[in-house]
Amino acid sequence: MDKMNMSKHISGKFNEELEAVRNRVLSMGGMVEQQISDALEAIQKGNVELAEKVLSSDHKINKLEVQIDEECVHIIAKRQPAASDLRLVIAIIKTIADLERIGDEAERIAKVAKESFNKDQQQLLASLENLGQHILSMLRKVLDAFARMDLEAAYEVHQQDEQADRQYEALTRQLMTYMMEDSRSIPKIMDVLWSARSLERMGDRCQNIAEYIIFFVKGKDVRHVSPESMERTVMGNKLD
Amino acid sequence: MDKMNMSKHISGKFNEELEAVRNRVLSMGGMVEQQISDALEAIQKGNVELAEKVLSSDHKINKLEVQIDEECVHIIAKRQPAASDLRLVIAIIKTIADLERIGDEAERIAKVAKESFNKDQQQLLASLENLGQHILSMLRKVLDAFARMDLEAAYEVHQQDEQADRQYEALTRQLMTYMMEDSRSIPKIMDVLWSARSLERMGDRCQNIAEYIIFFVKGKDVRHVSPESMERTVMGNKLD
Repeated sequence: MDKMNMSKHISGKFNEELEAVRNRVLSMGGMVEQQISDALEAIQKGNVELAEKVLSSDHKINKLEVQIDEECVHIIAKRQPAASDLRLVIAIIKTIADLERIGDEAERIAKVAKESFNKDQQQLLASLENLGQHILSMLRKVLDAFARMDLEAAYEVHQQDEQADRQYEALTRQLMTYMMEDSRSIPKIMDVLWSARSLERMGDRCQNIAEYIIFFVKGKDVRHVSPESMERTVMGNKLD
Repeated sequence: MDKMNMSKHISGKFNEELEAVRNRVLSMGGMVEQQISDALEAIQKGNVELAEKVLSSDHKINKLEVQIDEECVHIIAKRQPAASDLRLVIAIIKTIADLERIGDEAERIAKVAKESFNKDQQQLLASLENLGQHILSMLRKVLDAFARMDLEAAYEVHQQDEQADRQYEALTRQLMTYMMEDSRSIPKIMDVLWSARSLERMGDRCQNIAEYIIFFVKGKDVRHVSPESMERTVMGNKLD
């Protein structure tokens, strides 16, 4: 085998490895998506079994995170990737950390769903539905953007977090009014408030993942930059 | 220069680079430590200027995070580290992400401190002092463990998070009782509750950093493992 074929062969194998890791990230993302969807349904329908399903699936997601992390370190050590390949591996390492923590937040919501036996609380929990669906759609969209490394889609998700924050704030104000009207309901409402907070945090983490995608595609770290600078980066020419 | 000297020379320069990045992480950690300490003092003394200092220092920490991250990616691309050197770089990338978010939580507390003009709320905020000091000591200890890559110290911090969780739960129960006794105080107490939650989250992040130190020293990922398995890893023989 001459040198050129050899390097083609190596890079072919390398691409396969990268592709396999990317697919695993998407599987992990799909599992986390299912967790949120189940947690929201458990809340809506007071379905304790579904809440338990969320709680019991957490260890699978944790395991996948550790595995993907190991694979990434292995790829760096063995393949010594540079430029965009290295950025991809770094983006993956960061993405799975956020995905895992989105799963942790889903677990927190499922715990509340599991312990809410009465109708009153179920009605309160139902107020999480709009925010929950918004977050779920953000996660779906950012996973889709990750699958295609789609800059524009990532940027859209990034922008959508503002709406999630507004929904969260309105919900918080509403829940605090309920607490002031009926102080006996405070512990129950607190549970709903914590769940709302969990959803809001998930939105922040989807935003983080969108930033990693932009980092991969553009080679530029857009965390903590102004909205204008972010827009310039996204709209500018693509890197090779 | 013969081959051996050359490789010694390269590895000497490499070690210098790694050392420089480690030192930057410690500077970043020191800044975050100062933020928490200032936020707690702002709460205790109702010191608005100090709260503003915390808020205005956030961008420096963010900038440092992005810089260190870039340096790490640069080191991987240029030096192609393997084994423990690679583990160190990965541990650094993860550590700074947690440090930056500890800084974000300190900022949230400073915001509450800044907006609390009256005596009543200041008294309530004072109830955060014990938990706050515990978290501050966890951060100091884990930064110290990071500086020396000290396995035992990292493990101790990891164990201390349980106490933080207990303090947080007791505080939450107490604050909820206050809310039920006086419903007009609910919005004020909610601010204190969110601050308590911020402190509790900081403890979780110190625990994460402890896990990265253990990962570096032992070459084993100890996230999501049982306490027994964690203890076995820490007590087992050190890797080279």
